[in-house]
Amino acid sequence: MAASVVSADNMRPEGSVEYRQSAFRLMEFQLNFLNPMHRSQAYSEEAFAYRADMLSRLGALAHEGFTDESRSADSRASSRIWDNREDFDQRMLDFIEITANMAEASKAGDNRQTRDLFRQTLQSCRSCHDQYRLD
Amino acid sequence: MAASVVSADNMRPEGSVEYRQSAFRLMEFQLNFLNPMHRSQAYSEEAFAYRADMLSRLGALAHEGFTDESRSADSRASSRIWDNREDFDQRMLDFIEITANMAEASKAGDNRQTRDLFRQTLQSCRSCHDQYRLD
Repeated sequence: MAASVVSADNMRPEGSVEYRQSAFRLMEFQLNFLNPMHRSQAYSEEAFAYRADMLSRLGALAHEGFTDESRSADSRASSRIWDNREDFDQRMLDFIEITANMAEASKAGDNRQTRDLFRQTLQSCRSCHDQYRLD
Repeated sequence: MAASVVSADNMRPEGSVEYRQSAFRLMEFQLNFLNPMHRSQAYSEEAFAYRADMLSRLGALAHEGFTDESRSADSRASSRIWDNREDFDQRMLDFIEITANMAEASKAGDNRQTRDLFRQTLQSCRSCHDQYRLD
């Protein structure tokens, strides 16, 4: 379910910003749940898989919020996003996939793979913020 | 995954309010996606099931945000929530279940059942807001 689902009808520019910010806020909390489980290596806990899955699903919502119409709305989103649309979209899709895979690895009890994907998740957040989020 | 997953460690009272408000914000948008599909009776569309499923998952996140510690934090949540904890929790769980069933009915192509569950969803929102949300 990609950004194309969003219709201009129910997503004004300010609405898009609010939408993606709400999603990112919830994602931050999911990471706050995951972090202590990562520290204690509780990769196979049901809660780990649940939070990883939520992170992936919320990532898809966050992605929806970057509508073309919201380019000039006030937010921390750099205009580089819209200048490099393909790269940005790919990074968001990568994040969604990494976190979905992390949920699967956690459910499968593959601790090593889950840990690797957790590190990839943090790296995915960071590198995209470095490129596309204003300070 | 119930409210018990939330640890005081990563959920300060103000954080809880922000958390549940972000979830409710996203839920409102999901309903804004569902409404036009309801009007055009597009109950079997993939997008309908997707939004119904998101509504259910976001409902679970919203529910998490009503921590005991957040009772006195500034928000529109009535203190009746904490005075009637069991009733409130049951209403939230009912909402989560109704919307999950709506996603299933939509996927199964059962338009009549999906429509009934959509109406129950709206009714669930309204009656809980009437009881527990301040104006």
